[in-house]
Amino acid sequence: MSAASIEFFKMIKKTEEGTLLCMSKLGEIGEHETIRRILPMLGKHEALVVGAGDDCAVCRLKGTSLDQVFTTDPVIENVHFQSLEKPERIGRKAVGRVLSDIAAMGAVPQWILVNVVAPASLEFQTLEKIYEGMGAICERFGATIIGGDVAKGGKLELHVFGTGLVPADTALLRSGASVGDAVLVTGPLGCSFASGHHLDFIPRVDEGLFLRETGLVGAMMDVSDGLATDLRHILKQSKVGAALEGGAIPKNGTLAQALFDGEDFELVLTSPKPAELQARWAEQFKTELPIIGNITAEAGILTLDGELVESKAFEHFASEYAS
Amino acid sequence: MSAASIEFFKMIKKTEEGTLLCMSKLGEIGEHETIRRILPMLGKHEALVVGAGDDCAVCRLKGTSLDQVFTTDPVIENVHFQSLEKPERIGRKAVGRVLSDIAAMGAVPQWILVNVVAPASLEFQTLEKIYEGMGAICERFGATIIGGDVAKGGKLELHVFGTGLVPADTALLRSGASVGDAVLVTGPLGCSFASGHHLDFIPRVDEGLFLRETGLVGAMMDVSDGLATDLRHILKQSKVGAALEGGAIPKNGTLAQALFDGEDFELVLTSPKPAELQARWAEQFKTELPIIGNITAEAGILTLDGELVESKAFEHFASEYAS
Repeated sequence: MSAASIEFFKMIKKTEEGTLLCMSKLGEIGEHETIRRILPMLGKHEALVVGAGDDCAVCRLKGTSLDQVFTTDPVIENVHFQSLEKPERIGRKAVGRVLSDIAAMGAVPQWILVNVVAPASLEFQTLEKIYEGMGAICERFGATIIGGDVAKGGKLELHVFGTGLVPADTALLRSGASVGDAVLVTGPLGCSFASGHHLDFIPRVDEGLFLRETGLVGAMMDVSDGLATDLRHILKQSKVGAALEGGAIPKNGTLAQALFDGEDFELVLTSPKPAELQARWAEQFKTELPIIGNITAEAGILTLDGELVESKAFEHFASEYAS
Repeated sequence: MSAASIEFFKMIKKTEEGTLLCMSKLGEIGEHETIRRILPMLGKHEALVVGAGDDCAVCRLKGTSLDQVFTTDPVIENVHFQSLEKPERIGRKAVGRVLSDIAAMGAVPQWILVNVVAPASLEFQTLEKIYEGMGAICERFGATIIGGDVAKGGKLELHVFGTGLVPADTALLRSGASVGDAVLVTGPLGCSFASGHHLDFIPRVDEGLFLRETGLVGAMMDVSDGLATDLRHILKQSKVGAALEGGAIPKNGTLAQALFDGEDFELVLTSPKPAELQARWAEQFKTELPIIGNITAEAGILTLDGELVESKAFEHFASEYAS
């Protein structure tokens, strides 16, 4: 990690600790702090098993032995894709992100609804291709687009809402990690924007289902904001720490890119029995499921090869990509 | 109706019949035609009872005696509200629209998720008040906000996703009208933008539930695009016509405003036994449930006091309000 990045992390840390309280514009406090402040304002309900703050909300389906999971994702022109991107890939990404959230719970995808915001100048044929991309990825994973709406706006936006099903009380949560668990990841991380992987990734729906069914997984989530940021969510919600080994992390590019780039849409998970899990995984999948570290007792502390790692989120409000 | 409006309607009619096929930009074909063209691209599933094209999609909840309904609505700055509007009212309207769609099925509201798109310059306190408005209307009708997401954008937008529950096969559809049914409406129509009603309306959730439970209703939907446009959806999907009596329509403002303004969020419905329905309504509600016309055999034909009424939708892409 360069001296410049270390300085940047120090700055971020200072911001988090001191300055955030007196800031009030969304562009100053950033996406993650905005969401953190919104969470206490959301609703409570006896059938709401897990509220906002995980990859999906989890609700008990009364009268059944199932839980239903719910998630939404916005995909916005010049934030999540470039204006000249192929429309099929835009559609595919928009639904893929939601399927990735559902996969991270170990759930089976079910229903999809899409709000489209589009400039009046958009050709209908472009919208048609976006729907082709959305339809293809839905079909592959058994999801069905059942509705949505269309409205006029300055930039192209897709707001995708998805549901999934999982046996009651079995959804894999961010809060499920225990001290001594191994940390594993389903594939290589980093350079997703540069490589186009952020548009063409295959959501780990099959892998998520398999991992849940083994009964060998503690916590699980998908890597959308970068391993360092996302793993920190698991640490916070499980009240544990983690020690990563840089050499063990599967990478596309540098270690810093693997830790911070984001939009990888692999699953990161913890397991108390990683050897057994890897053996069963190898019977099912040709890809690797490497151990990249372990869960420690120091709540909230993330280390890489013994050194403290500061947080650096992929911030939609703050990042250059977004502006 | 003025001569100028009649000319305008003729123009619209010509556009619908002749020019639409060679137009391709969303701003040329308009919101309704865009949605009409998208519908065939949506998915099919054995558990999908009613797909897109009604107020909500209706899905069978396997293993239960319930159907689950799904809807989404976008609420966008300078389209659905003015930039300087009070944030509580913006939030209230955004969720209210979704509750109105759920009410139109005769369903009980359940879960709400919200994607917020906001400029970086938005004060967090403004967002907080939007959530207060959303929370208050949710609480009133037993809905719970369980999640969503936040992203940066040029204008403030709320994309609200909602679900509801209804006994299996009892959701009130646009396709349920029969020749000879009376047409009724739950309240006065027109001038909703001028009066502020489009922000402060009370979604007819209690009324929708009551109306379904009577077993005396054929078709039902909410009035969001104007009575003339919305009733036409019932006519199309029920393969019937309707004859309205101008003097019987409860109005805020002129007859043309009652027919075309939109955003009233009252329920329009049909009943084979309107006298019995009105008598039972009067036991429950203090408001009127007037008969405003009847369902006829001429498929797709809407008349007002014996004269043909052309369609004029509230078009987000085409209207001056939206531009």
